[in-house]
Amino acid sequence: MQRVIATMSISLDGIGSGHNQTEERPFGDAPSELLHRWMFETPDENRAEIDDIVSAGAYVMGRNMYGPVRGEWDRDWRGWWGDDPPYHAPVYVLTHYPHEPIEMEGGTTFHFVTDGIESALAKARDAAGDRTIHIAGGVSTINQYLAAGLIDELMLQISPTIVGEGLRLFEGVGPVDLELISSRGASLVTHVRYRVRHPEGERA
Amino acid sequence: MQRVIATMSISLDGIGSGHNQTEERPFGDAPSELLHRWMFETPDENRAEIDDIVSAGAYVMGRNMYGPVRGEWDRDWRGWWGDDPPYHAPVYVLTHYPHEPIEMEGGTTFHFVTDGIESALAKARDAAGDRTIHIAGGVSTINQYLAAGLIDELMLQISPTIVGEGLRLFEGVGPVDLELISSRGASLVTHVRYRVRHPEGERA
Repeated sequence: MQRVIATMSISLDGIGSGHNQTEERPFGDAPSELLHRWMFETPDENRAEIDDIVSAGAYVMGRNMYGPVRGEWDRDWRGWWGDDPPYHAPVYVLTHYPHEPIEMEGGTTFHFVTDGIESALAKARDAAGDRTIHIAGGVSTINQYLAAGLIDELMLQISPTIVGEGLRLFEGVGPVDLELISSRGASLVTHVRYRVRHPEGERA
Repeated sequence: MQRVIATMSISLDGIGSGHNQTEERPFGDAPSELLHRWMFETPDENRAEIDDIVSAGAYVMGRNMYGPVRGEWDRDWRGWWGDDPPYHAPVYVLTHYPHEPIEMEGGTTFHFVTDGIESALAKARDAAGDRTIHIAGGVSTINQYLAAGLIDELMLQISPTIVGEGLRLFEGVGPVDLELISSRGASLVTHVRYRVRHPEGERA
């Protein structure tokens, strides 16, 4: 069975992103530099976890994680990650507005899914082979998958900051029973990994 | 300078306690057994942290952490911890209702402070000597001290559960800039310790 893993960097108070996203500020009002310092300032120390985050056979992400365009696709947008995004695999973007697939360099192709989270996950399962499927964000997308009981594992990076305002991972979700797989402290981040315990018989 | 350390076990979504506290359920609707499993099922593995939690020279706690009595002290109540509480030091209980100090076995004395959080902290400082002062909870008490800029360190135990509803640590607090001192994974808990970075000149 392919594992479905939600991955995200959050603050100690669970904020993964901020309100008021713009093209210049993908994380809106949240202090992205504090949430992601660990990745940019200490990549060597966190190499294994960074490799894990981009190791999936397929990804699912929400439209706001993909870009700042709202409503109809009225402009050319190819994600925040340049010509060669770090995914190197199919990425299924949740949206209400159809769009042709966009093939990038390095093996990343953005597919646009308009019929809901279960459909996007089914497509990702078909594409992932025997590799994992990552629900890459944002906050609202992960919360939806968690609430639907579709996440097998959480792979989180807890950054040393209390943000206060913003989009909170687990908001409106729970109770959810977890099992701690591992946690590791680095100089700028705490890596935690959990298995979600699904109630008996709830999963197919 | 004596360090002021907030200590608490919280869920992954930051819940430290639940609504609807009663004498039978000090943590109200929150699943206390999931939040504190690590302490009761794996004490040897977490001996250093347990020792740290009860190592202070003086403690401050909110009235609800001390007990279920509300309003006037209309009954005899001596805390949830039996005749020999684990503190073995003065404990300053925040309340609006005066009460004589209660001396317990083993060196714990409960003092009742009616003139606010700064007064309670000042009394704890006087009593602590060169040892640390712990703000022992509950959630609302720690949040008040944090918001007032009076906490130097956080010593938290993150339990592998998403509770969903309850009293959330850091609710209404922030932004607060932190520095990660250490984090350590055990089988049932992730221990994290942070230094609070106070804005230049804000502290006396």
